[in-house]
Amino acid sequence: MSEKRVFVFNPGPAALPLPVLQHVQEEMLNFRGTGMSIMEVSHRSREFEEVLNSAVERIKRLLGLNEHYYVLFLQGGASLQFAMVPMNCVKNGKPVAYVDTGYWATKAIKEAQNIVDNVEVVASSKDKNYTYIPKDILLEKDLSYLHITANNTIKGTQWWRFPETGDVPLAADMSSDIFSRVFDPHPFGLIYAGAQKNAGPAGVTIVIIREDMLERVPQNLPTMLKYSTFAESNSLYNTPPCFAVYVIELVAQWLEETIGGIAKMEEINRKKAHLLYDYIDSQDFYKNPVQPEDRSWMNVIFNLPSPELESSFLSEATREGLIGLKGHRSVGGCRASLYNAVSLEAVEVLVSFMKEFARRNG
Amino acid sequence: MSEKRVFVFNPGPAALPLPVLQHVQEEMLNFRGTGMSIMEVSHRSREFEEVLNSAVERIKRLLGLNEHYYVLFLQGGASLQFAMVPMNCVKNGKPVAYVDTGYWATKAIKEAQNIVDNVEVVASSKDKNYTYIPKDILLEKDLSYLHITANNTIKGTQWWRFPETGDVPLAADMSSDIFSRVFDPHPFGLIYAGAQKNAGPAGVTIVIIREDMLERVPQNLPTMLKYSTFAESNSLYNTPPCFAVYVIELVAQWLEETIGGIAKMEEINRKKAHLLYDYIDSQDFYKNPVQPEDRSWMNVIFNLPSPELESSFLSEATREGLIGLKGHRSVGGCRASLYNAVSLEAVEVLVSFMKEFARRNG
Repeated sequence: MSEKRVFVFNPGPAALPLPVLQHVQEEMLNFRGTGMSIMEVSHRSREFEEVLNSAVERIKRLLGLNEHYYVLFLQGGASLQFAMVPMNCVKNGKPVAYVDTGYWATKAIKEAQNIVDNVEVVASSKDKNYTYIPKDILLEKDLSYLHITANNTIKGTQWWRFPETGDVPLAADMSSDIFSRVFDPHPFGLIYAGAQKNAGPAGVTIVIIREDMLERVPQNLPTMLKYSTFAESNSLYNTPPCFAVYVIELVAQWLEETIGGIAKMEEINRKKAHLLYDYIDSQDFYKNPVQPEDRSWMNVIFNLPSPELESSFLSEATREGLIGLKGHRSVGGCRASLYNAVSLEAVEVLVSFMKEFARRNG
Repeated sequence: MSEKRVFVFNPGPAALPLPVLQHVQEEMLNFRGTGMSIMEVSHRSREFEEVLNSAVERIKRLLGLNEHYYVLFLQGGASLQFAMVPMNCVKNGKPVAYVDTGYWATKAIKEAQNIVDNVEVVASSKDKNYTYIPKDILLEKDLSYLHITANNTIKGTQWWRFPETGDVPLAADMSSDIFSRVFDPHPFGLIYAGAQKNAGPAGVTIVIIREDMLERVPQNLPTMLKYSTFAESNSLYNTPPCFAVYVIELVAQWLEETIGGIAKMEEINRKKAHLLYDYIDSQDFYKNPVQPEDRSWMNVIFNLPSPELESSFLSEATREGLIGLKGHRSVGGCRASLYNAVSLEAVEVLVSFMKEFARRNG
């Protein structure tokens, strides 16, 4: 068995900061002197409540959330949120609105259509195979909310200027770019994020909800599908995914104390993404199809001149310890996911490998 | 920080086998030579699918399930199942039936009443504060299913003979006693279990469903609330709680290979429970209120002569490294949870402590 760690470019579950993994390893048999693993500690204990509350406070500080926001820990991933958002967030029967930027956005729309009658797709980039983000969105009606997918992991697009919606709250799937860059959270009524890309392990969903949105929650929903259940109990209505919350707390601590906050993280992410995009734009062997101003810093997609070359690129990369570069099964090609825990060094090694591969095969 | 491991009697999250924790610790930075943590491995990778498939196969072997059963991994705990069971399992509009054995059973009933119109409570032990399990249940109508809570963690009761229901499928919450004893699974159409008591860490729910039950799933349910979504995708419709599934696989491996299967586990659990109940029945200081033939082997509840004595019992026990003996907040008193990973030695130490405490305070 190899002792060596590889460079992880997985799209999610994805790289985690090595100091976090080492910390988890170190206290696996004895969490903070309790004589128990964190997995054995009661969710109703003082020790676990400290972990959970610290995770909430760190997330609030990292994102600059004001006192009107709740930070909740749910389960079921973004896919369950696709249903919970329309179940919980309709206001006075007003339509719900979505922007279709492909795949995950499309799934969110489909799920909403199954739940509420009046779903409006107010903008879409389907006309150009989702290679751009729609601009200048005009909202003609009063709406319950406008839903966007902040970053598209498969198409490699990212919203760099969020739509201005006036009194209509934004609702966003930030699964793949939460904590990666500075933004103003206050136009958002709801933000959700499966943790397994930028925040922790699979198995926990961060939900950030503004208190006014909780007034919309229908009383007759099943208990576990109401945001209010989690807000009223500090995510402790039933047993939360304790281990995953614990890792989120450690990742948030790493972001605050080792990296130095989101602005610093954004600076590193900018360098990583520019390094790769600048190289791709400097030559003709690798191509990225996304409109430059809408390119994702989290997921850089690229194609080689042929599927055969892509296949040997991926095999050789794996042998070199560069893991997870295959594009999503729905689109093929290649993709490097550059989430927070992926180091600048990892991207440098990747670019060197790409240059070398192009030299030999170009 | 103390180096010493304690004896964990937590009601859930609960004790895990030490060899499992050591295994998790050992490969935390490098899962099976991949150079990644199990938390960084893609859920679509060959390595993770091997883990998931092995967990499924081990659970099928442990429980002796025939080929008509699916083993699925969901999220949201038993509390979400309280809603998913009536959402998914009504057949031709026939009533759903429940036995009320207290607290969790009562919650399951309340959740069902919010979802379907015809919920029948066919038996209840409420008349005696849930200190027994109803016997000789007669089903007078054709029903969609009969739901029971196999073990009540709070009241300390357990079903030792499941109701005979003919063609009506049993549906059971086995969160707190799955894998603890031998039973015939084939009368069950559905079994669900939050993992955090007998099967692994919090954050994953095992659902075992017989194929005929899948035909009842309404097509218009939200995708993530349909059992069929998980059955059709081998629990990989979206990212599963990978780490929790990985620990379940290790616990199942420990059960099969170290313990030697469920019959062996049952023998150990019998010894543990008898040791404690025999002591309680031999004296007057500690009292257990449950009808002897319905006593739980998993959760032994007991009272001391006064709340003050209970309080000092709990403090002293904690100082002695006996953790988690407080009764549920809804009932008070004391409770020792003796799940699979709690050793016979732990129960011996507990009984010694109880004797010593009674001698000093009796």
